[in-house]
Amino acid sequence: MLLSELNQQSAAEAIHNGVTALLPIGATEVHGNHLPLGTDSFLAQGVAEKTAQKLGPGRGLVLPCVHYGQVWSLRATPGTVDIPDAVLTPYLTHIALSMYRAGVRRFAFINAHVGNCPAVKAAMRQVWAQCPDMKVFSFTYPGAEEVIKRVCTSRRPHKAYFHACEIETSYMLYLCPERVDMGKAICQYPEFPADFDVTPWPWTDIMDVAVMGDATAATAEKGRAIIDVVVDNIVRLMG
Amino acid sequence: MLLSELNQQSAAEAIHNGVTALLPIGATEVHGNHLPLGTDSFLAQGVAEKTAQKLGPGRGLVLPCVHYGQVWSLRATPGTVDIPDAVLTPYLTHIALSMYRAGVRRFAFINAHVGNCPAVKAAMRQVWAQCPDMKVFSFTYPGAEEVIKRVCTSRRPHKAYFHACEIETSYMLYLCPERVDMGKAICQYPEFPADFDVTPWPWTDIMDVAVMGDATAATAEKGRAIIDVVVDNIVRLMG
Amino acid sequence: MLLSELNQQSAAEAIHNGVTALLPIGATEVHGNHLPLGTDSFLAQGVAEKTAQKLGPGRGLVLPCVHYGQVWSLRATPGTVDIPDAVLTPYLTHIALSMYRAGVRRFAFINAHVGNCPAVKAAMRQVWAQCPDMKVFSFTYPGAEEVIKRVCTSRRPHKAYFHACEIETSYMLYLCPERVDMGKAICQYPEFPADFDVTPWPWTDIMDVAVMGDATAATAEKGRAIIDVVVDNIVRLMG
Amino acid sequence: MLLSELNQQSAAEAIHNGVTALLPIGATEVHGNHLPLGTDSFLAQGVAEKTAQKLGPGRGLVLPCVHYGQVWSLRATPGTVDIPDAVLTPYLTHIALSMYRAGVRRFAFINAHVGNCPAVKAAMRQVWAQCPDMKVFSFTYPGAEEVIKRVCTSRRPHKAYFHACEIETSYMLYLCPERVDMGKAICQYPEFPADFDVTPWPWTDIMDVAVMGDATAATAEKGRAIIDVVVDNIVRLMG
Amino acid sequence: MLLSELNQQSAAEAIHNGVTALLPIGATEVHGNHLPLGTDSFLAQGVAEKTAQKLGPGRGLVLPCVHYGQVWSLRATPGTVDIPDAVLTPYLTHIALSMYRAGVRRFAFINAHVGNCPAVKAAMRQVWAQCPDMKVFSFTYPGAEEVIKRVCTSRRPHKAYFHACEIETSYMLYLCPERVDMGKAICQYPEFPADFDVTPWPWTDIMDVAVMGDATAATAEKGRAIIDVVVDNIVRLMG
Amino acid sequence: MLLSELNQQSAAEAIHNGVTALLPIGATEVHGNHLPLGTDSFLAQGVAEKTAQKLGPGRGLVLPCVHYGQVWSLRATPGTVDIPDAVLTPYLTHIALSMYRAGVRRFAFINAHVGNCPAVKAAMRQVWAQCPDMKVFSFTYPGAEEVIKRVCTSRRPHKAYFHACEIETSYMLYLCPERVDMGKAICQYPEFPADFDVTPWPWTDIMDVAVMGDATAATAEKGRAIIDVVVDNIVRLMG
Repeated sequence: MLLSELNQQSAAEAIHNGVTALLPIGATEVHGNHLPLGTDSFLAQGVAEKTAQKLGPGRGLVLPCVHYGQVWSLRATPGTVDIPDAVLTPYLTHIALSMYRAGVRRFAFINAHVGNCPAVKAAMRQVWAQCPDMKVFSFTYPGAEEVIKRVCTSRRPHKAYFHACEIETSYMLYLCPERVDMGKAICQYPEFPADFDVTPWPWTDIMDVAVMGDATAATAEKGRAIIDVVVDNIVRLMG
Repeated sequence: MLLSELNQQSAAEAIHNGVTALLPIGATEVHGNHLPLGTDSFLAQGVAEKTAQKLGPGRGLVLPCVHYGQVWSLRATPGTVDIPDAVLTPYLTHIALSMYRAGVRRFAFINAHVGNCPAVKAAMRQVWAQCPDMKVFSFTYPGAEEVIKRVCTSRRPHKAYFHACEIETSYMLYLCPERVDMGKAICQYPEFPADFDVTPWPWTDIMDVAVMGDATAATAEKGRAIIDVVVDNIVRLMG
Repeated sequence: MLLSELNQQSAAEAIHNGVTALLPIGATEVHGNHLPLGTDSFLAQGVAEKTAQKLGPGRGLVLPCVHYGQVWSLRATPGTVDIPDAVLTPYLTHIALSMYRAGVRRFAFINAHVGNCPAVKAAMRQVWAQCPDMKVFSFTYPGAEEVIKRVCTSRRPHKAYFHACEIETSYMLYLCPERVDMGKAICQYPEFPADFDVTPWPWTDIMDVAVMGDATAATAEKGRAIIDVVVDNIVRLMG
Repeated sequence: MLLSELNQQSAAEAIHNGVTALLPIGATEVHGNHLPLGTDSFLAQGVAEKTAQKLGPGRGLVLPCVHYGQVWSLRATPGTVDIPDAVLTPYLTHIALSMYRAGVRRFAFINAHVGNCPAVKAAMRQVWAQCPDMKVFSFTYPGAEEVIKRVCTSRRPHKAYFHACEIETSYMLYLCPERVDMGKAICQYPEFPADFDVTPWPWTDIMDVAVMGDATAATAEKGRAIIDVVVDNIVRLMG
Repeated sequence: MLLSELNQQSAAEAIHNGVTALLPIGATEVHGNHLPLGTDSFLAQGVAEKTAQKLGPGRGLVLPCVHYGQVWSLRATPGTVDIPDAVLTPYLTHIALSMYRAGVRRFAFINAHVGNCPAVKAAMRQVWAQCPDMKVFSFTYPGAEEVIKRVCTSRRPHKAYFHACEIETSYMLYLCPERVDMGKAICQYPEFPADFDVTPWPWTDIMDVAVMGDATAATAEKGRAIIDVVVDNIVRLMG
Repeated sequence: MLLSELNQQSAAEAIHNGVTALLPIGATEVHGNHLPLGTDSFLAQGVAEKTAQKLGPGRGLVLPCVHYGQVWSLRATPGTVDIPDAVLTPYLTHIALSMYRAGVRRFAFINAHVGNCPAVKAAMRQVWAQCPDMKVFSFTYPGAEEVIKRVCTSRRPHKAYFHACEIETSYMLYLCPERVDMGKAICQYPEFPADFDVTPWPWTDIMDVAVMGDATAATAEKGRAIIDVVVDNIVRLMG
């Protein structure tokens, strides 16, 4: 169920029947030339919809996607939008509070962009404190790491970071292949300065095309393997 | 052009070539049982896309839609999301500031929900003050009123307010007819308390189904007549 | 009754007896050369006092006037003071909250400056949410429009805006004629750019002397006709 | 000169000619039964007007009075209005910034209520930091203490505090005697708890009628002696 | 007892047994060349520890010192740290709220830097309002003034201000003599401009070495005389 | 060099000579019964001091420790203090801005508490944006992980979290052994609920004594091995 497609009565019924609200949170951020700027939003939407399907008919309600998030690292690239945490956190919080006020008692932030994590975590804690009888979750590809280690073949560009690479491209090939242009996929391993993790480094200082890793190694099959586990995990963890 | 579908290079080129950025701003709000909760977002998206078409190839860039706005009046209805102005305004402002930083020099808020107007106006003024060499506009159906008076046949429910009625339903019948269920359209004229305009009145205190006006009078033709003028006006007013 | 003139006991008694608190909200803003910068404050004060009289002895309590409001459009003129909405709203809110804490259960913002409307509306809603058993109202010349159409003779300068014109000058001629210098009244119809309503336009970009309309057509009689209806409406709408 | 009485041209000329802007800041607060709730506003206005006279024709511009300030200690009394510092400070700051933007280069906060001092000081420092070429001052009865010691006869109720007593009543008898009802003046010395200065004590916990000191000892002559020195000091200190 | 040295069980027991929490608040600010930049922190810590001793075993709990406060006047000197009131106040408030949540019912801010007073007072009032059953105090050398008048011999540099002078140096000689270099103590009486108290004057505009008064007159004995009374007062005032 | 021990001249010289400012950031948080509540502050202070020593005479300046940080997980334990990110971030930012204003051009946050990381990162980015010619770093035990894997012997309690365990206890045994009571060290592996990482779980819900891991396996030698590498890394990464 997509909230934006429901009418007043069906929305009220779904909530009355105890639906789990799923809020996809993406970003508008460059992802090289083989993936679109909406990549993180498409992925958040895709994971949320698969989660709703897995939950079963009438049990998962996908809310409209939040398309603008925190993108500090690539904020200098044309087309990328950066929302500061101090603005993003209350925006997310009020969406959840509105759902709570309406009677929702199980709410999940389905986040697909790592830069959003601090704001999502802060929002989750605020909602938790204000809505004592609502279960609130946040998911950013839970359990993906194990499958990635198993199915992905290219070297990781950095201990913590990757971008528009084998992993994200595989997600897109699985969830919305029509938006991927593999002919433009590249393999790029930027050189990280020694102090990359301990002082602010805009990613635009270390690469022109925003790809961190080997996008050419991506396949829909790898994307399916990871995402299906992620979705299973989300459903399982919500209990 | 949809920003979410562009890749890094095409986004950069579009901005470099002087594209006008168009930000659709909708809401998630009940609109009776014949229209979906995403109505205002679908309309904002539709108007923005038609504006981009009218501007001509490569001249209009539609940004991802902002799906959550200020909905005080119906905030008590299940499924409706209400973002306070103090949160919405900086969220909108930062989207425009990101575009400005990227080189955009013509930016328009394309708003389809009247409740967003104060936040949009405040955001527009802040952007104007911070981006002296960017033209910034906000549009909420400019020029619709004249056409409405000419083509609409039902009585207006209130001097200032209408909702999910002949007007909005006609817009939807023109822009996304597949999302309208005319079989559930109703005609409803709530009785307004004398002090409705001068003291806070949640709309849920005066009606159950969120329809204010006669939705049964809606036609795609009326929607087309109004929206086409609106789009012409937007293009003309941006000069 | 003017709150500033009461002593501790009479203020306590008035509130204990269920008085309606009336807060005049004006502005400090140039109004051409025939009207003083305090025009909006004088008008707010005048309307509030007439409302108190109409309510009857001991029933209306006029609070000290708020002399500084939101004046974005003319903020570039010497002497004009502009308070941002984000500052004005909590200032107004705390005045009402103080009255509520003291026992007042009927509170009205009597506003005379259109630029204050967003802040006043926001304050009214916050007070309403925090003071569930206090009736809170906001009035900006309620019902004036009908009488204006009937008694005023000059052309309106703009669909939405007018300033220091036949209307406001008539108000002043009725409420404090000693502050009007009709010898300096002018008739001025600025040319509005096509995009005046959709992009920020400081009024100083379209006129030097801050008059929008025909001040020479003003009479005390017109002012009386409109203001008396406004005051009747305020009293009637508060029930 | 009162700004509220000037027209557009005379305000512009006064500012162009280097006028000193004087902002009276009062409060709305109970002052027993012999003084009105507007006492601090009347006093601020009075001191500002006398200062303008002393400065000489065309040299001092009295702005409209700020009638609502920080009144924590007596906030529980009916009719008293309390504005938190966090709201009051930016309100005051924006008034001064508007004057600066208009060309004013000498600005004085004329404060008559001790509770406003922290907000006034904070505002003064912010204005100072943002307006490097404007002299900004704040005065709360400068030099009064020396004269008080000389002319007042009653015992001081507390090392730091007094209220509606010989001092303030004398000010009122000098500046607006028509608003004083000496028949209701009382002498009251509340007993201060030992920890009065080191833990929050609403004044309403130690007295019913808000008088701290001996109002019966007040005379217009004492008020004149103090206020005239205060005004001389203000003029002298502004250089 | 120092909270930082307690373990989980002993902290819980101390709080359970009704300990008084004492929060030392200092500053990082230049104090000439005979005193260290940590002077105010050392003094706050010293007063808090002596207070805890005076309260008796298990009755006073000294929290870790807040080392950064509001230092507007000397903010231009290298090494001095200035935290605005708007940041300092909630920082202090949350420390007290955490103690309250843990069960503490008697809390004292032990402040040693006059510039912190507005933030400390604001924090105290917020804590008082939110923790109705906790006694909250703030102390800035209570009762010092009387003893200073008796034991100090040098002239006061200013009615309200002194700095790194006979008084503060004596405190340091008593509380941590090993940190004082009397060989560098100086006597300095800056000339105060006439408008020093009514317009912002950074102290760096009137002196190079940050000493206001006669440090050479300081003795440990004077420090002991004053501080012991201060500590007695703190204990007595908390009841 | 400890800033709190310097005098005005030596602080100015150190900064003038290009010193690196090191700000220790700890917390006040229970760490079981074998470690004190000040553990994170002692560790931050210790790492900062060793870093200053490693930098060499006159090259590192240790600022006073920030003793209160963000401690959401254990905020329910008596004695623990929790400062929200929205308060902590500007507090940290202003310390760095003060140093920058004074002439410091190399600044490092030396953080010892993982809960502070979001606030520290946010502060670092704000400082970076406002101080373009100052290098700003943040360190939370950089490079510790590799050594931990090599020298520690006990099982890790959780993929991401550990507390008062072999690791932290070893740090304390190396840096301030006199504050460790190994007689009270315990080995505790709380059972983590499946959804521990995706919904808010106060740690007090899964354990009483705040130990996560095996504190009994700690040795000063292990602490030395890790901390010395950490300090080497800090010095090396600052270049």
